[in-house]
Amino acid sequence: MGTKIGQRTYQFSEDIYIHSYATVVGRKEYSGPLAAGFDYHFADNLHGEASWEKAEQKMQQYALELALSKGSLDPSVLDFFLGGDLLNQIIATTFTARNLTSPFLGLYGACSTFAEGLFLAACLIDGGFAQYTAVNASSHHDSVERQLRYPTEMGVQRLMTAQWTATAAGSYILGRQTSPFRITQAVPGRVVDMGISDNNDMGSAMAPAAADTIAAYLTDTKDEKLPDLIITGDLGVLGGQICLKLLLNQGWDVKNIYNDCGILLYTTEQDTHSGGSGSGCSAAVLGAYCLPRLEVKQLNKVLLVGTGALLSPASTQQGETIPCIAHGIVIESR
Amino acid sequence: MGTKIGQRTYQFSEDIYIHSYATVVGRKEYSGPLAAGFDYHFADNLHGEASWEKAEQKMQQYALELALSKGSLDPSVLDFFLGGDLLNQIIATTFTARNLTSPFLGLYGACSTFAEGLFLAACLIDGGFAQYTAVNASSHHDSVERQLRYPTEMGVQRLMTAQWTATAAGSYILGRQTSPFRITQAVPGRVVDMGISDNNDMGSAMAPAAADTIAAYLTDTKDEKLPDLIITGDLGVLGGQICLKLLLNQGWDVKNIYNDCGILLYTTEQDTHSGGSGSGCSAAVLGAYCLPRLEVKQLNKVLLVGTGALLSPASTQQGETIPCIAHGIVIESR
Repeated sequence: MGTKIGQRTYQFSEDIYIHSYATVVGRKEYSGPLAAGFDYHFADNLHGEASWEKAEQKMQQYALELALSKGSLDPSVLDFFLGGDLLNQIIATTFTARNLTSPFLGLYGACSTFAEGLFLAACLIDGGFAQYTAVNASSHHDSVERQLRYPTEMGVQRLMTAQWTATAAGSYILGRQTSPFRITQAVPGRVVDMGISDNNDMGSAMAPAAADTIAAYLTDTKDEKLPDLIITGDLGVLGGQICLKLLLNQGWDVKNIYNDCGILLYTTEQDTHSGGSGSGCSAAVLGAYCLPRLEVKQLNKVLLVGTGALLSPASTQQGETIPCIAHGIVIESR
Repeated sequence: MGTKIGQRTYQFSEDIYIHSYATVVGRKEYSGPLAAGFDYHFADNLHGEASWEKAEQKMQQYALELALSKGSLDPSVLDFFLGGDLLNQIIATTFTARNLTSPFLGLYGACSTFAEGLFLAACLIDGGFAQYTAVNASSHHDSVERQLRYPTEMGVQRLMTAQWTATAAGSYILGRQTSPFRITQAVPGRVVDMGISDNNDMGSAMAPAAADTIAAYLTDTKDEKLPDLIITGDLGVLGGQICLKLLLNQGWDVKNIYNDCGILLYTTEQDTHSGGSGSGCSAAVLGAYCLPRLEVKQLNKVLLVGTGALLSPASTQQGETIPCIAHGIVIESR
């Protein structure tokens, strides 16, 4: 049974662990600073497939198979498969679900989808509905850019405020068997829209939603030890600065424990402008950066804050601003 | 704590009720046989909005406000708002979430989204994570057709196997306070793809997924009283016949207790060909047809089977077949 701490934070009552996980990335991501942390990388953005969309599905498939294999689990043990991606009708995920016999629950929360999935998977386990649940999330630079902005072949110049959609997939199997990574708390996010409509600056649009969730968590758990890492996924450079400033205005100075998945995924030399983004970004960085540090207790308590910009090309064309959301998940080393 | 009955059916341990609900439909739907059961109808497909997408969002907004009002609830009591629709990036739902302060969890399961939402909402309440949770789903004929098939202004002739995307929205508030409608069991669906690729005949594509879920439920609960209505949402005329035949082949003759939301929503004179469909169809028909009959105990146990075709225009263009799913929810009169 989940219990509330304060206004918005949930404490899971059962022991919920990340049993095993795997990450698969593209060549650009494998050329970045976290290369050693990924389980597999694609040679190019197609990896032998006929389309970028099919390549993205293959990344999810590989990630899931690797996560199961690393956890010595048969796919049949999965009580649920949860996940989503940025493609219209989340086809990278639904076509991965086709290869499983587990019940499937499709999610859409833009780049917050991964954190949303972790939250729901933990709730299903905590509520007695599941022993093992897989959570997948992915994004693919070329499939997403041509769908949401411009075909990459056009070579449209990107604005300096823009983030780079990561080619990345992650698969996480949650279960009750003890592992070094325990999911202990969560703060599901609410929609915040501060009236920003520039879809080339989503980090700035999402920053208030991230700050809202982080402030809620810090307030609810003010008597507890602070996390030693608060990591958003993904605000990028610009959005991260705004988020820190918004938190400081509320009395929370967390700059020394703050980082962002989109910033960590690439070096500044990789020319991504404001950093990475995409549903797969936080799923890849959690596995390549956070969990290895939790495993050796270099970190003990991580608040992952999955951020999502809940717009569409149609809503932007129709003059709408950008509703944003951020879901927080606390992972502690055992 | 949820408990399993047999292989795939969950029994909720807590008393979970549909506290209140509301449905909003378009003019065509209001001209159909269920007119008296809807809470509100739009005068035309725009209802004063500048676009069909905005009109669809307004339908969700009205449905949610009416459901809260009918249940004498303030929006602040909602622990979660769950929902989805057929628009890319589910913007009818995300822009409705923007007007709430509750945590939002976006879902995508095509026309199964509503049943998926009911399942997850019931799990969140059963697991102690929520007292009240709202579940929304919607579809709008013109916004969906222009996105997934052809702009309706083109007047493309529809095939006789095609279903008519309903202009409809439903909002359901689940809670623990006693009401005439108790959610007792659920069978989350798994993806079934029998190799059908004709996106003008989705009922036939989805029928095997529906039969898979219904057969699982009937097998798991073979010692219990049969539901007095098994209602799919939405297979239409053709898909419904295939589903019944598939069940009969497995020894389940349920034709006397079977119906389909897409068939019930329109008269044959309304020229919808194989019947209605769309994420809002089952949400509207549950409220306009099933719940009033459960309330007066003309029905006592309804198995709602939300069916979804998890394709996209891109997957069809790339030669893929259609992965399908069906989630079952049992609602009993108290």
